[in-house]
Amino acid sequence: MRFKMERTAVILVLMSLTCMCSGQRPEFFSVDIYSELKALRSLVGEISARLNATQRELEQERADKRVAFTASMLSTVNRNHGPFDRETNLIFEKVLTNVGNAYNANTGVFTAPVKGLYFFRYSGRAFSGKDMGLSIFKGSSRIVSSYDHQSGDTNDSISNGVALELDVGDVVYMRLWINSWIFVDSRYNYCTFSGFLVFPIG
Amino acid sequence: MRFKMERTAVILVLMSLTCMCSGQRPEFFSVDIYSELKALRSLVGEISARLNATQRELEQERADKRVAFTASMLSTVNRNHGPFDRETNLIFEKVLTNVGNAYNANTGVFTAPVKGLYFFRYSGRAFSGKDMGLSIFKGSSRIVSSYDHQSGDTNDSISNGVALELDVGDVVYMRLWINSWIFVDSRYNYCTFSGFLVFPIG
Amino acid sequence: MRFKMERTAVILVLMSLTCMCSGQRPEFFSVDIYSELKALRSLVGEISARLNATQRELEQERADKRVAFTASMLSTVNRNHGPFDRETNLIFEKVLTNVGNAYNANTGVFTAPVKGLYFFRYSGRAFSGKDMGLSIFKGSSRIVSSYDHQSGDTNDSISNGVALELDVGDVVYMRLWINSWIFVDSRYNYCTFSGFLVFPIG
Repeated sequence: MRFKMERTAVILVLMSLTCMCSGQRPEFFSVDIYSELKALRSLVGEISARLNATQRELEQERADKRVAFTASMLSTVNRNHGPFDRETNLIFEKVLTNVGNAYNANTGVFTAPVKGLYFFRYSGRAFSGKDMGLSIFKGSSRIVSSYDHQSGDTNDSISNGVALELDVGDVVYMRLWINSWIFVDSRYNYCTFSGFLVFPIG
Repeated sequence: MRFKMERTAVILVLMSLTCMCSGQRPEFFSVDIYSELKALRSLVGEISARLNATQRELEQERADKRVAFTASMLSTVNRNHGPFDRETNLIFEKVLTNVGNAYNANTGVFTAPVKGLYFFRYSGRAFSGKDMGLSIFKGSSRIVSSYDHQSGDTNDSISNGVALELDVGDVVYMRLWINSWIFVDSRYNYCTFSGFLVFPIG
Repeated sequence: MRFKMERTAVILVLMSLTCMCSGQRPEFFSVDIYSELKALRSLVGEISARLNATQRELEQERADKRVAFTASMLSTVNRNHGPFDRETNLIFEKVLTNVGNAYNANTGVFTAPVKGLYFFRYSGRAFSGKDMGLSIFKGSSRIVSSYDHQSGDTNDSISNGVALELDVGDVVYMRLWINSWIFVDSRYNYCTFSGFLVFPIG
C-alpha cells in the first residue's frame, strides 16, 4: 500500500514567476496543505490507538477464555469414601487438566477467575449397594444433584451437569451427602468433576 | 504515534530566489503533494472503515455467543411425572440459567438464536423401579436417548449429550417416552436439561 | 472521515513576493512537508499491515474453533456388542455431527486438528445384566472410565466426561473393557461419544 516515488525533491510552486515578481496575485484556489496534513496525522493517530485497543482486547479475551479443569478422586486402594455424619465437601485430588489453575486440588474448590458463563459436570460411581448422593454447590447454594439408593444393584453411576453464570471469585464445588458413599479407586477415574468457561461476560 | 511539531508555519520554497526572479526554471524534481495527500487520505479512510467493520464483527460475535441454559423439573412434592399414553414433551420449568433467553420455560423448547454448533445434555432420575425413557429431539427428529427398564433397582440415573449444528430458529427439546416416568422433586434438581452455543457458524 | 474539499489547486506560497524578490529571507518557520508526508505514509502502511494481520488471525481462529462431533454406535438389530478377549476400540460408526471432520467414523478415533483444550463425554447403556466397562483413551493412556457390574438390574446407563489439553495430532478414542458388553440398537442412540474444542491454545 505504500507509495513508491523515485523523485525526492519537491516543487509545489508552479505559478508563473513572472506573475509573482510583478506583484500580481495568481488566480489559483488555495488549500492549506499543512493543516490538512496535521488533521490526517491526528486521524491516523486515532486509528492506530483504536487498533491497539482492539488487539489488546483480543489478547485479553484469549487469555481470559483459558479456564478448564477435570479432576478425579484418588485412592491407593479401591475403597468407599464415606459415610460422614454431615454433608462433606469432596476433594478431587487427582488433577487431569487444570488450564488457568482455577481449580484447587487441595480444597476441591473452583474459583471463577473472570465473570462468565461456565459449564460443570460430574460423574460418580457407587459400589456394593451403598447409598450415594452428590450435589454441585455454588457458594452455599445447592445447584444440581444425583442420588442412588442402596439396592440390589452392585454398581450404579450417576452424573449431572449445569451451565452457571459466575462473578469473579464465585466458588463452585461438590458435596457428598450425609450417610452416603462414593467409590474411589487408584486407576480408572470413575468419579470426576469437570468445568470450563463457555464465554466471558462483561 | 502522533507527530509533535513545535513550528507551525510552512516554508516549502527553498529554491534560490535569485534564480526565480531571473525567470530561470530551477533544477528540482517535482511531486504533486496535494495528490499524494488526497490518496493518503483515501487510504486512511479505507483503513478506518475496515477497522470499524472488524470492531462491529467482534461485538456481534461476543453478543451472539452468549447463549446457555440449564433448567430443571419442578414439583412442590416428590412425585413421579407420568405415565402418559403417548410420548410427551418435557417442560423443565425451573430455570437455573438462561443467558440469551433462547430456552422457553413455558414450553420446554430451546430455539437457536444464531446459526451455530450447540451442545446439549440431560440427566434424568427414575424412582421406585419405574420405566424411564428420555430423548432429545431436534424438530421432529429423535437425536439421542436413554432408557431404564423397571427393575429390582429402586433408583437409576441416566444421561446423554449431543453436539448439534443448528440453523436460526431450529428447535431442540426433550420427550418422555410413552408409559414411562421421571422422578421430580422440589429441591435437588436431579432432572436437568442444559445447552450452550459452542461456536457460531457463517 | 474523508476530507471534503471543493478547491483543487494548491498555493502554499503566501509569503511576501516583494520580500522574496528583494532577496531577503522571510521570517517563517520551516517544515519539510514532503518528509512529513512520507513518514505518515509509512505509518499508515504499518497500521494497514497490523489490521490485515489481526483480521487474518480472527479468520483463522474462527476456522480453527470449528471442531465438534457426536457419533453413536449402530446396529440393524438390537444386540449386545461384545464380549471380546481383550480391551477393544469402540467404533461409533453413525455420525450425528462432525464439524471439522476430526472424528473418523471408520476407526472411532478423534485426531486433534489444532492445539487446544477439548471436552469429551460418552454415554453407554448396558442391557440384560451384562458387565459394561468403558474408558476414554488419549493415545495409550486411559483417562476416565465407567463400569457397571452384571447384576439383578436389567438396564444401566453410565457416562463420564473430561476436559483434555491436546497437541495437534493427539488422538482420543474409546475402549470397551475385556469381557464386557455394550448395548447397540438401530434407532435410539443410547451409546454416544461426543467432543468439541473449547478453546485453541498458542
